[in-house]
Parts: sequence; C-alpha cells; structure tokens
Amino acid sequence: MRAIEVVQAFWRCMASNDFASVETVLSPNFVLEWPQSRERIRGPARFVQMNQEYPAHGPWRFTLNRLVGNDCEAVSDVSVTDGVQVGRAVSFFTVAADRIDCIVEFWPEPFAAPTNRAHLVEAMHEAIE
Amino acid sequence: MRAIEVVQAFWRCMASNDFASVETVLSPNFVLEWPQSRERIRGPARFVQMNQEYPAHGPWRFTLNRLVGNDCEAVSDVSVTDGVQVGRAVSFFTVAADRIDCIVEFWPEPFAAPTNRAHLVEAMHEAIE
Repeated sequence: MRAIEVVQAFWRCMASNDFASVETVLSPNFVLEWPQSRERIRGPARFVQMNQEYPAHGPWRFTLNRLVGNDCEAVSDVSVTDGVQVGRAVSFFTVAADRIDCIVEFWPEPFAAPTNRAHLVEAMHEAIE
Repeated sequence: MRAIEVVQAFWRCMASNDFASVETVLSPNFVLEWPQSRERIRGPARFVQMNQEYPAHGPWRFTLNRLVGNDCEAVSDVSVTDGVQVGRAVSFFTVAADRIDCIVEFWPEPFAAPTNRAHLVEAMHEAIE
C-alpha cells in the first residue's frame, strides 16, 4: 500500500472510536511526537490508551480535509470534534511495510486576524473546524 | 519540476529576504489561505507586499524541517525567526506548470503538556523552533 492508503486506514480506525483497532496500522516501534508541547508517545499500546483515556463528551468525529503524500510519507489535515470540543490536527506520517512508524503532529489554534495586514487580505468564510 | 522542487525554490526566495523574488514561483492566480484567522490573500503582489511590510527585527531566517510531496502537491514544515520573533509554519502547496497556485498555511503555537496524559508520554528535548 502507498502511504496515503495506510493513513486513510488509520483515520478510518480512529473514526470507529474503537481505538484498539488503530494498532493494526501501527508499527511495533511506533512513535508519535507533538512538537508544540514537546511530548513523545512510544509504542502502539500507549497511543491506544491515550486515546481511550482522553476526556470526551461523545464519540469523536474526524473530517479528512486533505491528504498529501507519496509512497512512504503522507500529511493529513483533519478536523476533530466530540460535539463540544473542536480541534484541527496536521499530521506528518512516515510509513514502511504498510505500517505507520512515526507521526509528527501539530494542533493549530484559531487566532485573531492581525489588523496591520487588513488592507491586503479578505475574510474566509470557511470555519477552522 | 516536481512540486517539492518548486517549494524548495519558494523557500530559497523567501530566505533571500528579497520578497519580490518570490513572484517568480507564484502563479498569477496565486491564493494563500490562513484557516486559523480565516484570512485569504489573493495575488502575488499582495503576498509580496505583506512580507515586505511584516514588522521584523532583522532578516528572516527559514529552516526547512521537512518537505513531503508528489508531482502536484507538497507540504513543508518550516521554522522562522528574525532573531527575536519565532514561529513554525506548516504549509500545504498546490503546484501546476512549475508555479504555486495555492498555499494553505498553519501556524501552530507552543502549548503546555497536559498533565492527564503525563503517565503515557516522555519529554522531547527538541525545541519547537
């Protein structure tokens, strides 16, 4: 499988909310890094547990806004919500032998449009989530 | 050229701090979107002007942390600093005929590691910038 197909399978597993199923697409040496908080999770089991324990108001829904990749790498832009909490994840995947070895993931937050460039921009009506 | 080569050329032009030079890799219909602030910039001229006018303490330096792509799309992870301000840009590029048609760009900010998953993570020593 190409990396983008493995990543599509990853997000299908996440969307099932059966987070144990995600292990089927993770390498035994799987590592996830969040550079913004300088956190790293090692191993599929901890990743599954983190998702199972994450405080949620309901089932998580994932919207795959975009997926770019080649044979061994892919990047997804995904909107996430549990009906109350909303977020947007940009995730860099490294894939080998149909398994995800590594994710480097960013969680950009909304910010106010700077006034000093207002003369150069227009408003987008698309919501972040 | 493949998309990643065009994006490499884009970041070389940015690194020159001669922002007018960036026009050489932009399509006449170039559009940049920042979903976090719901801002959109239309046209190479406004993009050049925005970069020229952006308040800076010195020349901008750009570090290309990662570049993933295929023939027509690419995603870069770039650290940016003027020696005082620091930032990290994750940018989705759409390329056609050796020119960049569209950038959708995210600026993730540092956040504190959540305490409720501390038992599952380790600290990364890599800085965000």
